[in-house]
Amino acid sequence: MLNAAGVLARQMTLITVLTLALVASARAQTDPLPSWNEGAAKAAIVGFVGRVTREGGADFVPVEERIATFDNDGTLWSEQPMYVQAAFAMDRVKAMAGDHPEWKDRPALKALLDGDHAALAALGEKGVLQIIAATHSGMTVSAFERAVRDWVRAARHPRFDRPYNEMVYQPMLELLAYLRANGFKTFIVSGGGVEFMRAWAPDAYGIPPEQIVGSSGKTEFRLDGDQASLVKLPEIEFVDDGAGKPVGINHVIGRRPVFAAGNSDGDLQMLQWTTLNAGPRFGVIVHHTDDGREWAYDRSSPVGRLDRALDEAPRRGWTVVNMKTDWKVVFPFEKQ
Amino acid sequence: MLNAAGVLARQMTLITVLTLALVASARAQTDPLPSWNEGAAKAAIVGFVGRVTREGGADFVPVEERIATFDNDGTLWSEQPMYVQAAFAMDRVKAMAGDHPEWKDRPALKALLDGDHAALAALGEKGVLQIIAATHSGMTVSAFERAVRDWVRAARHPRFDRPYNEMVYQPMLELLAYLRANGFKTFIVSGGGVEFMRAWAPDAYGIPPEQIVGSSGKTEFRLDGDQASLVKLPEIEFVDDGAGKPVGINHVIGRRPVFAAGNSDGDLQMLQWTTLNAGPRFGVIVHHTDDGREWAYDRSSPVGRLDRALDEAPRRGWTVVNMKTDWKVVFPFEKQ
Repeated sequence: MLNAAGVLARQMTLITVLTLALVASARAQTDPLPSWNEGAAKAAIVGFVGRVTREGGADFVPVEERIATFDNDGTLWSEQPMYVQAAFAMDRVKAMAGDHPEWKDRPALKALLDGDHAALAALGEKGVLQIIAATHSGMTVSAFERAVRDWVRAARHPRFDRPYNEMVYQPMLELLAYLRANGFKTFIVSGGGVEFMRAWAPDAYGIPPEQIVGSSGKTEFRLDGDQASLVKLPEIEFVDDGAGKPVGINHVIGRRPVFAAGNSDGDLQMLQWTTLNAGPRFGVIVHHTDDGREWAYDRSSPVGRLDRALDEAPRRGWTVVNMKTDWKVVFPFEKQ
Repeated sequence: MLNAAGVLARQMTLITVLTLALVASARAQTDPLPSWNEGAAKAAIVGFVGRVTREGGADFVPVEERIATFDNDGTLWSEQPMYVQAAFAMDRVKAMAGDHPEWKDRPALKALLDGDHAALAALGEKGVLQIIAATHSGMTVSAFERAVRDWVRAARHPRFDRPYNEMVYQPMLELLAYLRANGFKTFIVSGGGVEFMRAWAPDAYGIPPEQIVGSSGKTEFRLDGDQASLVKLPEIEFVDDGAGKPVGINHVIGRRPVFAAGNSDGDLQMLQWTTLNAGPRFGVIVHHTDDGREWAYDRSSPVGRLDRALDEAPRRGWTVVNMKTDWKVVFPFEKQ
C-alpha cells in the first residue's frame, strides 16, 4: 500500500509529465520552423525576422519591401545526381527520338541516345544548347508546360524512387511559409528555366508563376485566325545565373531583396546584391553536408559547386546552414 | 395659412427630396466607378467583374488567375503632346550637355540641343537610340531612379502646367482599384522603360515595382570592394511593345491575363493574347475622343496610333471607351 508520500510523488510525476507534454505541444504549435534543430542558423533566422517586423524598431522593414529570393536547385530541392531539368531533357530526347530521325546527325543528341557520356561531356556548352534546342523549343509555351507536368507526374528520382516534386526540402518549405506569414513576398530566382519551374513549382512551394525568375529562351507571338500562341524558339534569351541573378532580380522584381538564400557559387552575386546594402539584410547558404539523408558536396562538385561563396560567407555575415546538424528532416516523406 | 392637403404635400416633397438624397448618397458610396458615366462601357466592365467573381457561376475565375494588364502611355496617363519619357530624355540631354562637350559630334544630340526637330526626326530610330544611350545609361540603376524622381518632382506638363504624375486618368485609377477590390492583381505592361516607370508609377497607381513590365536596357552587376551596383549599359535588352507585349507578359508574369486595357496598335497583340483564349476574357481600348479635356486622336497620330486595333475591336468584342462620353472627369485635378 502506498503511503501519503508515495501518492504525492506519483501525482507530482503525473503533473510533471502532463506539464512537459503541454509545453512541448505548445512549442510545436508556435515553432514556425519545427524541422530545424535549435542552433545558430535557426536563431539567426528567427532573430532577423523578429527585428525587421518589429514596428518602431531600428531594423523595421515595411511590408512592401520584404522581398525574399530563393535559388531553386540545391536550395529548395535536390540537384543530385544531376539537375532535374537535365533529367527531363534527357528523357525527352529519348521519348521524341522516334519522330526525329535527323537527330542522328546532331552530335549531342546522338551521344545522348547512344549513352556515350564521354562524347556528350566533351561537347560542353554546345552540346547543352543542342539538347535545349531539341527539347525546349519548336512548341508553344502551353504545350511545353503540359510536357513538363506529364513528365513530373511520371518520372522518379533514381536514388529515392520518388516523384521529383517530392524531393523538396521540408525545412525550406517551413522557411518559405514562415517568411510569408511575416509579410515577406517569396520569389524563386534560379538558373533553371522559368517555364520548366512554373509547371510544378507553384504547387510545390506555394509561389505563384509571377514570382518565379529564371533562365529563358526567346519566344514569338503568333496569330493564326482566332488562335493566339507563343512559340518557343531555339535561342537563349537570358541566363539567370551568377552575375545574371542581380540582373534578373532588377528586371523582373525591381527591388533589392532583404533576404536571399542559395547553395552554390551561382548564387554568390545574388547574395552580394542582397546583403551589401544599407539596412538589415540576410544571406543564407545551404551547405550540403549530409550524404546519408541527401548528399555531401561543395568545392569540387560539378553540380552546385560551392567554393567562393563559402569562403566569402564569414566575412559577409551570411548564415551557412549545415544540412546534417541543422535539419531534423530533409524531405517531407521522411516524416511519414 | 396652409390647409391639411398643403401640409401633406410639403411633407411628401420633403420626404421625396430626402429619399432621393439618401439614394444618391448610397449610390455614390457603392458605385465603384463614380467617374464613369452610365453606359455600355461601364455596364460591360461591371458585368464582367460580377461574372468572374460569382462563386459557382459558369464564368467564375479563381483569384490567383485574375491577372489584369494595363498599358501605361495613353491608357493610364496622357501621352500628348509627346511620350512623357521622351520629355524626360530631352530635358536630361539639355541638363547634362555642359558636362558632355562630345555630344556636339552626335547628330541626334546636336539636333536636339539646337532645337532642329526636322534633323532629329530624319534620324528616326537611330536618333532615339543615341538619346537613350546618352540619358538612360552610364549610371547605376539607383542613380537613374533618383534622376527620374527629381525630374518628375520638378517638370510640368506644357499644356496643363501640372506635374506629369497628375496627368493620370481618374476613371482608370478607379478601374484599377475596382479590379483589385475584386481580387485582381493589376500589372502595367508598357512600351515605356521599366525603370522609368518604377520611379513614380507605384505611388501614382498603387502598383508595386514587381508588377510593372516594360522595355529595358541591359544592365551589368559590378562589385567594387563592399559596394555592389547594377550599371545601365547603352544597349536595348527588350522592347515591350506590339508583339513584344505577349512575350513580356509570358516572361515576367507567366500567366495569360483575363483582362487587358490599351489605347493603341502597340496594345493589339496584348489584347489578342488576352482575349483569344477559353473562358471569360475582357479587352478594353481607351479611345481619345476629347480634345476639350484631353486630346482627340487615333488613326493618323504619330503618338499612340490607334488603327488596326480599332478596326478589330467589334469583331473581338473589345469594349471601346469613348473618353468624351464615357468619362465624367478625365484628370483627378478636375474634381478639386
